[in-house]
Amino acid sequence: MSKITSSILIIGNEILSGRSQEINVKFIAKELSKIGITVKEVRIVSDIKKEIIHNLNELRKKHNYLFTTGGIGPTHDDITSECVSEAFNQKYMINKEAYKILEQYYSKENFNAGRIKMTKMPEKANLILNPLTVAPGFYLENVFVLPGVPKIMQAMFLNIVKILEYGDPIIFKTINTDLYESIFAESLAKIQNKYHDCEIGSYPTFVSKKKFGGVNIVVTGINKKNIINVIKEISNTIITLGGKINN
Amino acid sequence: MSKITSSILIIGNEILSGRSQEINVKFIAKELSKIGITVKEVRIVSDIKKEIIHNLNELRKKHNYLFTTGGIGPTHDDITSECVSEAFNQKYMINKEAYKILEQYYSKENFNAGRIKMTKMPEKANLILNPLTVAPGFYLENVFVLPGVPKIMQAMFLNIVKILEYGDPIIFKTINTDLYESIFAESLAKIQNKYHDCEIGSYPTFVSKKKFGGVNIVVTGINKKNIINVIKEISNTIITLGGKINN
Repeated sequence: MSKITSSILIIGNEILSGRSQEINVKFIAKELSKIGITVKEVRIVSDIKKEIIHNLNELRKKHNYLFTTGGIGPTHDDITSECVSEAFNQKYMINKEAYKILEQYYSKENFNAGRIKMTKMPEKANLILNPLTVAPGFYLENVFVLPGVPKIMQAMFLNIVKILEYGDPIIFKTINTDLYESIFAESLAKIQNKYHDCEIGSYPTFVSKKKFGGVNIVVTGINKKNIINVIKEISNTIITLGGKINN
Repeated sequence: MSKITSSILIIGNEILSGRSQEINVKFIAKELSKIGITVKEVRIVSDIKKEIIHNLNELRKKHNYLFTTGGIGPTHDDITSECVSEAFNQKYMINKEAYKILEQYYSKENFNAGRIKMTKMPEKANLILNPLTVAPGFYLENVFVLPGVPKIMQAMFLNIVKILEYGDPIIFKTINTDLYESIFAESLAKIQNKYHDCEIGSYPTFVSKKKFGGVNIVVTGINKKNIINVIKEISNTIITLGGKINN
């Protein structure tokens, strides 16, 4: 699998309380897989300084990249930029470039304390421009700090893709079968043991108690030839076991 | 806030790759908040034994409860039960009760190795019954092991709610305003500083570059009277600042 690894840190009580559905992980993971970067772990933490700093430091040291979302707005619960400054032992201060951008965008009477707060970042932060709502995110070494609002995060994410180191694009192939997992489990394990550079996942779907939704078998890797061979072997196994393949 | 805390460990490459949208966190967090249990952190990890065991041990010691989803099926990538056994230093073995349930459900020729694997658990596991697809989950001390398929997880989760220790139900009140966050940020911080047992969160929504979607201000706590007071103070502040309240 890809040697370039990353993690995502989602900051926000609204996710942990069950009020909001988290959807940034899926977007980021999909975009990263296109450029050969694997997401190895995700953590969702609440707006508590100590927790955020602890997780920032653990994850930025463990993987090539760390992406954070949430907590960079103007209100009291937006503490991500301050936490990143502390994690890196840098001053938390007004970024001149960000200040200029917001100063130009807002009229003098609208450039209030909350908006000035959004220009405060670690001393050596590099801006990530925001094509939608102006207030920028930033990156510092391997940590990329993005907003939590999905549409804004997505627009800004596309601005950082170009500065990341690319790995080999990760390829996924899925086949769906009407067989129960337990019927092909042993054969699938044997195929997995033969191909160490592919990862075979098996995901049953559920429709209702009376209607079985089938199983998606997903083969992941960077070597197209091997993936095709694995898919062929799995398909043959399923047919030999009396199953159908639905795609 | 509630003194009973929990965490969720999501096990599954399909989430980290961006192929599947994670939706179990929202369900579990919502159900737990009804019975006064706060979710303090969530981690999503891949199907790697060392990683799963490390996170199991960290999270089960840190919070009152740990809920895991995923990785308890019959295939080679289902390694959660084995990992929980190792984390607790217990034998990974056939659970007699689970074996009986599956033996009764399946005809002899269909009770294959894959299905027998689903009866293997830590030695001292207690079953969590599965009203939909029979194969049970289990709990051990404060760790609850559930499947990843949302509908099945949800049906099983309702079976464990009754054995958890309840805290004071967590109350959320939301007001929506047409003001930009930066306009009320300072006033909101002052109100937050006055009420330490309530948590005030501010969540802007985004419709399009030209249309502002307003901000949801969410007050969370267990003391209804204080929450009502906080909501009143916020509402007055917003009106004083020239804003509207939309609910």
